[in-house]
Amino acid sequence: MGKKITSREQDYSQWYNDIVQGADLAENSGVRGCMVIKPYGYAIWEKMQAELDRMFKDTGHQNAYFPLFIPKSYLSKEADHVEGFAKECAVVTHYRLKNGEDGSGVVVDPTAKLEEELIVRPTSETIIWDTYRKWIQSYRDLPILVNQWANVVRWEMRTRLFLRTAEFLWQEGHTAHATKQEAIAETEQMINVYAEFARNFMAMPVVIGLKSVNERFAGAEETYCIEALMQDGKALQAGTSHFLAQNFAKAFDVKFTTKEGKQEYVWATSWGVSTRLMGALVMSHSDDHGLVLPPKLAPYQVVIVPIYKGDEELEKVSIVATKVQKLLEDHGISVKFDNRDTHKPGWKFAEYELKGVPVRLVLGARDLQNQTIEVARRDTLEKETHQIVDIEIKVKHLLDDIQENLYKKALDFRDSKTFIANSKEEFAQLIKKGGFVYAHWDGTSETEELIKQETKATIRCIPLAAKLESGVCLFTGKPSNMRVLFAKNY
Amino acid sequence: MGKKITSREQDYSQWYNDIVQGADLAENSGVRGCMVIKPYGYAIWEKMQAELDRMFKDTGHQNAYFPLFIPKSYLSKEADHVEGFAKECAVVTHYRLKNGEDGSGVVVDPTAKLEEELIVRPTSETIIWDTYRKWIQSYRDLPILVNQWANVVRWEMRTRLFLRTAEFLWQEGHTAHATKQEAIAETEQMINVYAEFARNFMAMPVVIGLKSVNERFAGAEETYCIEALMQDGKALQAGTSHFLAQNFAKAFDVKFTTKEGKQEYVWATSWGVSTRLMGALVMSHSDDHGLVLPPKLAPYQVVIVPIYKGDEELEKVSIVATKVQKLLEDHGISVKFDNRDTHKPGWKFAEYELKGVPVRLVLGARDLQNQTIEVARRDTLEKETHQIVDIEIKVKHLLDDIQENLYKKALDFRDSKTFIANSKEEFAQLIKKGGFVYAHWDGTSETEELIKQETKATIRCIPLAAKLESGVCLFTGKPSNMRVLFAKNY
Repeated sequence: MGKKITSREQDYSQWYNDIVQGADLAENSGVRGCMVIKPYGYAIWEKMQAELDRMFKDTGHQNAYFPLFIPKSYLSKEADHVEGFAKECAVVTHYRLKNGEDGSGVVVDPTAKLEEELIVRPTSETIIWDTYRKWIQSYRDLPILVNQWANVVRWEMRTRLFLRTAEFLWQEGHTAHATKQEAIAETEQMINVYAEFARNFMAMPVVIGLKSVNERFAGAEETYCIEALMQDGKALQAGTSHFLAQNFAKAFDVKFTTKEGKQEYVWATSWGVSTRLMGALVMSHSDDHGLVLPPKLAPYQVVIVPIYKGDEELEKVSIVATKVQKLLEDHGISVKFDNRDTHKPGWKFAEYELKGVPVRLVLGARDLQNQTIEVARRDTLEKETHQIVDIEIKVKHLLDDIQENLYKKALDFRDSKTFIANSKEEFAQLIKKGGFVYAHWDGTSETEELIKQETKATIRCIPLAAKLESGVCLFTGKPSNMRVLFAKNY
Repeated sequence: MGKKITSREQDYSQWYNDIVQGADLAENSGVRGCMVIKPYGYAIWEKMQAELDRMFKDTGHQNAYFPLFIPKSYLSKEADHVEGFAKECAVVTHYRLKNGEDGSGVVVDPTAKLEEELIVRPTSETIIWDTYRKWIQSYRDLPILVNQWANVVRWEMRTRLFLRTAEFLWQEGHTAHATKQEAIAETEQMINVYAEFARNFMAMPVVIGLKSVNERFAGAEETYCIEALMQDGKALQAGTSHFLAQNFAKAFDVKFTTKEGKQEYVWATSWGVSTRLMGALVMSHSDDHGLVLPPKLAPYQVVIVPIYKGDEELEKVSIVATKVQKLLEDHGISVKFDNRDTHKPGWKFAEYELKGVPVRLVLGARDLQNQTIEVARRDTLEKETHQIVDIEIKVKHLLDDIQENLYKKALDFRDSKTFIANSKEEFAQLIKKGGFVYAHWDGTSETEELIKQETKATIRCIPLAAKLESGVCLFTGKPSNMRVLFAKNY
């Protein structure tokens, strides 16, 4: 027993894998690049989904479902899109297997070849805009505000649990609008929804900004993103929202009649977050003891562990523990009472520490006499003994405090790793050290490419909050009017 | 305007399609056999999902997620399973496209051929039991009670929206147990959960029973099912729960150490319902005016339509309508207030009738004077004018009444179409007429096959509630000890 977690200092990458697997979040499957999301990990994802889904619906969106498969020819219709997505993907070429002639199992039936190959969706713009053509005739049919929860496949060569997998789960919003302004407003609204979710639920600070041309979504005219800083000083793109202009409407011939009776192409947006957020969550808060979860996303916020000798003591402790559980649950707190006699308390402590349960309550025979209970918080690992009276109020406050503290800690960490570079040498040094580096840039793709080659850093975003400030590009000396955000990234 | 619904009498099949498309539930996509589930249809599916998910969790299950792809060799490991599922399926053979040499778009890159083909999951027993091998060592690891919400693909040649599509959405429960009894108890528990859902939420009566050998799930030792009767007299299998014995444990070598230290194979179940339930829902209650929805699954239970001349009247009516909406919502009723001025009241009446909204409230200028409101119920199409006072209580009762009435109506219909056949001729005649026919059968697959050839009827199930009663098989004259349920089916 006692799954060992490699320390961050020793091997950050191994630390991440140890936590994802040790905390029962996910594991690799027998299918290359595809993961199994285990029940505990999936419960966290369900919490994320529930909050995001509520936020989408509060902003007027409805869910729908579009086909898993995309005919190959659809991908070719939008020129940039096909460049970005058609290359590494799963291709369905046949629709039948048959028994092999040598009796050794099944083989592909060569007579069951598809006339046109089908691509397992890497993203759904093409199939959705092919559908929207049928839904949109007049300005009365607009806007269309639709979201889809789905699985998508991108054939990644190097995969990592949650961060980069061949198949992943996500949501993709696809909206259609009568005007450019409305579509831009939608794009901005949704990146703000993501930022709010990251901050308030994941306790993860993010920088909101625009992608440079190099990093833009294939087919978008503008990509908004949120960028978070991981504990190893690398950036992680946590969500994107794309202003697609009329690109897909033109590719799929989606026009509408305006109030004035004119025919115009429809304006589009798309936006998405994925199970990658699980990786971001792990790397934002966890420590060398294991996962640390913000209370708002924890499958259970409190675990109660009894300490006892023999069945009689367990029974007595259980009566009080069950009362406490009920009290907490009545106050909207989710609780697990682990009264299994197959595992010792010490084993349970380690297990729930590894699983990041925000609060642990321990109740023993002596506590019953003293009317006390031990309260341990996962974020700071502090423990205190409290009177059991009003325990539900104490725990409620504690959970709020943990949620806030995690955000503050992550923000302090980010602040301590955010730098301004004023020379090429300083830039290179800071990037090597790891962290967010703000620097002047001449605005060209060529220079961005050059910087990437020399330092491995890319422009994570042009922050929306960036102040106009004249300067010169650190690499070319050409004029620049603001600092943009650089980092190495996932 | 005015989407026309073909009557059931005129063309039942067209009636079904007209409702599914007219009520904005789903439509065909550009991908053969794959449907688009539209927002209104998806909202109903979400309601189904939420209730089922709650029922699964209340019975101790957790959700997880397993890969979309199954290596071809996995399918061959369970002999019956491969016969049943490996044949008509989507096969991924390549993982890359490239630009065609003639510049005419993208083509499959022949150098990117997979060593082993991947099958898009038609069901997940194989990939899940390959995973369970890693999860299960000892009796302490059992039971595993896991469910997955997912898309699956079965390459159907003749498809119909919701009823039979190449890709469909479903949930699949996969559980692992230490004993045969426990696995059987789980199988039975879950078919009862499905029956309860069908009755209490879909307002759809079902017969619970066992499948005959011919109709059993490929790889199961026993398949339980729920069967419902559609308005055309055909049966629809609405859910199945399989006792898989140790078949998959043996195929994937999943053993556990018992309390006594012995090595034994694990016992399994699997159970599922799909978007097919949407088709069953449509065909259970709808009429020639359109969809009829049970209030418990309606995206909005009440629609308020204002009647007015000019903006001033609309404003006055809106004040009261909004108050009513708020009152209803405070009582847990979902309400849409349709104050669009782009459509006339008559158009709205037809639209919400077609969409099956359970209750329509109409509020006009005269109602304001009289403190009244018109209440129309979709199931009976009756309307009455009520005093607006206590409207929330009246509507709440009305919704309960509609839910009950729909179940009763469907049950009465089924009763009127349930027959007992005592001779071969009577059997053939009754089956031709349509409905459930109970008849003696000698228990052999050969006879079942013969009956199917002669009458197109199959054994829908051996009802759990069937009484022992000796008789003779109508087709072979051999002895039989109970009547089983026959019908033509979807």
